[in-house]
Amino acid sequence: MFVYERAVRFEEVDAAGILFFARYLAFAHDAMEAFFGELEGGYPRLITTRGVGFPAVDVHASYKAPVRYGDTLRIEVVTSRLGGRSATLRYRMVRGDGIVSAEIDHTVVSSDLAKMKSVEMPADVRAVFERHLVDSAG
Amino acid sequence: MFVYERAVRFEEVDAAGILFFARYLAFAHDAMEAFFGELEGGYPRLITTRGVGFPAVDVHASYKAPVRYGDTLRIEVVTSRLGGRSATLRYRMVRGDGIVSAEIDHTVVSSDLAKMKSVEMPADVRAVFERHLVDSAG
Amino acid sequence: MFVYERAVRFEEVDAAGILFFARYLAFAHDAMEAFFGELEGGYPRLITTRGVGFPAVDVHASYKAPVRYGDTLRIEVVTSRLGGRSATLRYRMVRGDGIVSAEIDHTVVSSDLAKMKSVEMPADVRAVFERHLVDSAG
Amino acid sequence: MFVYERAVRFEEVDAAGILFFARYLAFAHDAMEAFFGELEGGYPRLITTRGVGFPAVDVHASYKAPVRYGDTLRIEVVTSRLGGRSATLRYRMVRGDGIVSAEIDHTVVSSDLAKMKSVEMPADVRAVFERHLVDSAG
Repeated sequence: MFVYERAVRFEEVDAAGILFFARYLAFAHDAMEAFFGELEGGYPRLITTRGVGFPAVDVHASYKAPVRYGDTLRIEVVTSRLGGRSATLRYRMVRGDGIVSAEIDHTVVSSDLAKMKSVEMPADVRAVFERHLVDSAG
Repeated sequence: MFVYERAVRFEEVDAAGILFFARYLAFAHDAMEAFFGELEGGYPRLITTRGVGFPAVDVHASYKAPVRYGDTLRIEVVTSRLGGRSATLRYRMVRGDGIVSAEIDHTVVSSDLAKMKSVEMPADVRAVFERHLVDSAG
Repeated sequence: MFVYERAVRFEEVDAAGILFFARYLAFAHDAMEAFFGELEGGYPRLITTRGVGFPAVDVHASYKAPVRYGDTLRIEVVTSRLGGRSATLRYRMVRGDGIVSAEIDHTVVSSDLAKMKSVEMPADVRAVFERHLVDSAG
Repeated sequence: MFVYERAVRFEEVDAAGILFFARYLAFAHDAMEAFFGELEGGYPRLITTRGVGFPAVDVHASYKAPVRYGDTLRIEVVTSRLGGRSATLRYRMVRGDGIVSAEIDHTVVSSDLAKMKSVEMPADVRAVFERHLVDSAG
């Protein structure tokens, strides 16, 4: 399990005073970038130099409890499924008081960004996914 | 079916040059606000004066094809499920060339925003959902 | 004078409940894109096909009165200065009740986006700036 | 001088591939929140419990060089002016290669957020501004 912490910023709440539901996906992406932080040059180098990225093909978000400005989400990330060209990341986002705010499943596909076509996952990227792979039957 | 059009803005693309996946949910919310445009004072008055809102409890997004700056998404909205306190909106987002970019299911719950608890759906809001209700078995 | 209207969106307020100060610049950019709407293909084609853009080099924003979700800003745009490679746009953003919310001066430079170097302003772009040029001595 | 580091996130670039000009102000706000981190409960508690905030009344941003995804801005913050109810923060944002990307002057007013009226600056907040006050004549 990979863990990433992210505070709710001043501008990230909506007119109802809670973290805007779309922003949870941005939190997930931030966590994914941190997840790939051990790659040389991180996710930025993968995108900008190697031309490979992981666009989402499927996202499922389950919102459990709102979170407000001043709180921090502890985001626990695991790989729940790993295929040849795609993988699913699962994020569990927990508030400071221990209550789960949201759970997100995020399926991404290894893609050549210039052609926007799927490609075999680079070995170093696969290794990161594998390190955090959980037994999804568990 | 309710239809809403929304251009991809200059700042809404990501470092891969395509509409950022989280922003599709913001597009969905914009479409929902327009969907409720026929209410007196629209969604803003519902939120700010009546203290009732529709936070998301569940979102499923299926991304089919990327969309870039300069393109406009035509967003088709229907009510795919209507309960006593919750409803599911389905959005089909179509690019200018006719290709579907994403499909999103967005389940919301009628909520007292001060208490953050579910409440019976106000009659005028229910009427809007009903007008766009489709036979989900279809 | 060019006029553009833009509603404050649900997600654009901050934890103080007012339009986040940085977002006024996004409103200004939206207004600039609309300002260039008469160009063939608009600002998107300028950016993506012709490779010319107008990055900001200087911005001055004066905030007069807050604006909230549910209000719409009427944005009046004029060219307050026009040089060979740069121009200054002035935006006056007025709330629904007639009170000025902000005034922004936005100086942009005609730039080759691949080289990120200034270039002579294309004639059709200059013509748009000229049409809305005001006597800044006035 | 207070120093804050902030990476450019995947979604923060625009269609020209550089940090969107409005987002620099969000970076400034993040830095200001960190600047106030030594207050008990930080800026969030000031806003949400004490009902005092520091809305911007004036911002001047000078953009020197673009910054891209994968780079980090080192943000140096000083108080350049301190009055009874207002203060000006100056941010110098430096790229990883040592080149200054932007300089921002941000004037804020101590405000009662419920009444949206200026109030005397709380003593603990003033102390933070004072600690980082520079001789503006210097």
